[in-house]
Amino acid sequence: MNDNLTADRPSFVTHLECSMTGERYDADMLHGLSRVGRPLLVRYDLDAVGAALSRDALSTRPTDLWRWRELLPVRHTRDIVSLGEIETPMVPIPVSGGANVLVKDEGRLPTGSFKARGLVMAVAMAKELGVTRIAMPTNGNAGAALAAYASRCGIETIVFCPEDTPEINVREIAMQGARVWRVNGLIDDCGAIVGKGATEGRWFDFSTLKEPYRIEGKKTMGLELAAQFGWDLPDAIFYPTGGGTGLIGMWKAFDELEKLGWISSKRPRMYAVQASGCAPIVRAFEAGEEHAERWEDAHTIAMGIRVPRAVGDFLILRAVRESGGKALGVGDPAILKAVEDCARRDGLLLCPEGGATLAAYREALRTGEVDEDERVVLFNCATGLKYPMPPSPQTLDRHAPIDFDAL
Amino acid sequence: MNDNLTADRPSFVTHLECSMTGERYDADMLHGLSRVGRPLLVRYDLDAVGAALSRDALSTRPTDLWRWRELLPVRHTRDIVSLGEIETPMVPIPVSGGANVLVKDEGRLPTGSFKARGLVMAVAMAKELGVTRIAMPTNGNAGAALAAYASRCGIETIVFCPEDTPEINVREIAMQGARVWRVNGLIDDCGAIVGKGATEGRWFDFSTLKEPYRIEGKKTMGLELAAQFGWDLPDAIFYPTGGGTGLIGMWKAFDELEKLGWISSKRPRMYAVQASGCAPIVRAFEAGEEHAERWEDAHTIAMGIRVPRAVGDFLILRAVRESGGKALGVGDPAILKAVEDCARRDGLLLCPEGGATLAAYREALRTGEVDEDERVVLFNCATGLKYPMPPSPQTLDRHAPIDFDAL
Ligand SMILES: Cc1ncc(COP(=O)(O)O)c(C=O)c1O
Ligand SMILES: Cc1ncc(COP(=O)(O)O)c(C=O)c1O
Repeated sequence: MNDNLTADRPSFVTHLECSMTGERYDADMLHGLSRVGRPLLVRYDLDAVGAALSRDALSTRPTDLWRWRELLPVRHTRDIVSLGEIETPMVPIPVSGGANVLVKDEGRLPTGSFKARGLVMAVAMAKELGVTRIAMPTNGNAGAALAAYASRCGIETIVFCPEDTPEINVREIAMQGARVWRVNGLIDDCGAIVGKGATEGRWFDFSTLKEPYRIEGKKTMGLELAAQFGWDLPDAIFYPTGGGTGLIGMWKAFDELEKLGWISSKRPRMYAVQASGCAPIVRAFEAGEEHAERWEDAHTIAMGIRVPRAVGDFLILRAVRESGGKALGVGDPAILKAVEDCARRDGLLLCPEGGATLAAYREALRTGEVDEDERVVLFNCATGLKYPMPPSPQTLDRHAPIDFDAL
Repeated sequence: MNDNLTADRPSFVTHLECSMTGERYDADMLHGLSRVGRPLLVRYDLDAVGAALSRDALSTRPTDLWRWRELLPVRHTRDIVSLGEIETPMVPIPVSGGANVLVKDEGRLPTGSFKARGLVMAVAMAKELGVTRIAMPTNGNAGAALAAYASRCGIETIVFCPEDTPEINVREIAMQGARVWRVNGLIDDCGAIVGKGATEGRWFDFSTLKEPYRIEGKKTMGLELAAQFGWDLPDAIFYPTGGGTGLIGMWKAFDELEKLGWISSKRPRMYAVQASGCAPIVRAFEAGEEHAERWEDAHTIAMGIRVPRAVGDFLILRAVRESGGKALGVGDPAILKAVEDCARRDGLLLCPEGGATLAAYREALRTGEVDEDERVVLFNCATGLKYPMPPSPQTLDRHAPIDFDAL
């Protein structure tokens, strides 16, 4: 019924490339990091894409993630694994944000977060390349998406989360067929366990940016934004940044779209938003560094961005700088306040990471970093339902006389 | 950017009609139940709709709920209140269901359930008609949708839930700006409080089917299904039935589409699925009754369908019978098993009510009521994340030697 999922359509991948050295790697083979330990980027024959597909042709396809197949790595229709990757809506938040602020509500994707974009692609490629066992460190959302897609196509998964990951995330991962462990540490400690097992040949390592295809899935956020804005990108994007895949992916998307001639050279300013309790990218940005040191004693309620060290640090920093944006830190109280205001005034329940982007936007408005006339997109990367909320009220006794005036 | 929300488009409402007596009521006025205490149905000038809109023209619009505006009651673009009511995807569940089974995943709507469809419409109409204060009894999901949309347009809301409503639902409602109370009773006990306050003029009563517009919103499930199936409806629909708005709404949609000449007279068999611990419609169906008596001592883990008495009972029973379907009861163990299988094998986490439809489908397959060659749609009416799941596992000590073979 959705021919994005059933029609044969070519992929135009030519090769992979080290993001640091530019060294070339063959496509259609299993890869982790490059020889120098950095992420690999997928490259396409964009001239051929342009010849095969026009913006007009694209606009007649169902609007899900798979309409971008010519710009995605999966070659065979049979390897597509799907749980309904819809195009996510953009929701105005006029009261808590402003007249020109749109929230891209990624909580509508399968498993309730934008991690579905990256994992649907990485799992399809793992399937295509014959992987049978995958392990991953996760703050919760990525593990849920991995579990869902991998279980769906019969790939075994083992997932490691920080000890204090919310119960709902861990349960969701387990329900969806993964073996899941809490680990007394942070996400990079979980990553070390995954890395060790991978070295021993026990499983394939699915850590952020340690395999090349999650970023291709995340890239679709940028492709979608371009289409949703009528091929004229917004002025600024606020992105809650942990590993940074989404920000790097969008930047890559804009590049490919410009080479296709589908957008101009105009770019949004990219704002990498972090929690002030875990802000390695902000620190490196402000110090003018190219890489970010590990952030010690990381703490924030926004667990998705509690990432002390990112293997793609230099790619995040490069994109932010090239775009004329900034890396911004916000405190937990401002995050909570933003979540509360947006829910209460605009009826949209953000996740804390989404709240962080709203908090950062407000602060940027205050400092004059953005103007209220500018068209801004905030990323709400997961459904607000996955997160703790204040406790609920007392019980009303229907057998006692009810004081209606006091309700 | 989405002209469904911004373009002026006519509504073709002519009047309202008592679902029992056919008595006519004026449109564009505030209404509750009809004079005889039964739901009102909205009627349209379908000839005029057919002249104004074709299936082809419809297919060029963005695929959200508002593309159906000619068949919806909201007259003024300014009264549309929206949080991004996307068309929900249909997800195959080949392993836990079968080759021809699709789950319509309503958990992707704003506030994580299909209640958004009904409430977005009812709130827009309340806004259009000048309502400033709304109360509602809810098992959780409807209250969350009401709170979100009403807060978004500045309408005050008071919500009453059964005492044992899951904490996450109650918190969500409160976060989204409603005043919310737990009540020591079931949903009809909450309804009695709402009714009393409404009689005293304290608020407008938004109980299921007690105002005429929620059903128009729910109707869009039927409209969408028709479009998604290329205007050739599936053979059977399994719908988790509490108040029954969705089932009644879809039946009404099919009727309107046939009058428009957009579908044939072929109809899906409608299966009203209830939990065996609260199955008033099943009992009435089997006894050949036109109305359903209150179910005493209602209990089931599927709280959305824990509705002991439905004001639209006769409309549900009528649609089920006319369609050649049945009302089916399933036990909680079968529901839990269905939820578990679907998550583990197909990667899709259903809500218990969605699990009930899968359990009922499996049982219907076993008894020969449906055939595995038939095209079947199961409704998953809310995200599975709102519901309790089994507790998560123990912690792995990263400082101790890790036994990788045991992971
Ligand atoms: C809700 C949420 N927001 C943001 C992020 C950060 O994403 P990225 O790794 O692309 O920086 C995550 C990652 O876990 C997340 O779950
Ligand atoms: C998840 C879920 N499924 C099904 C239902 C029943 O819907 P209806 O009132 O249309 O029968 C509800 C209502 O609360 C619900 O929340």
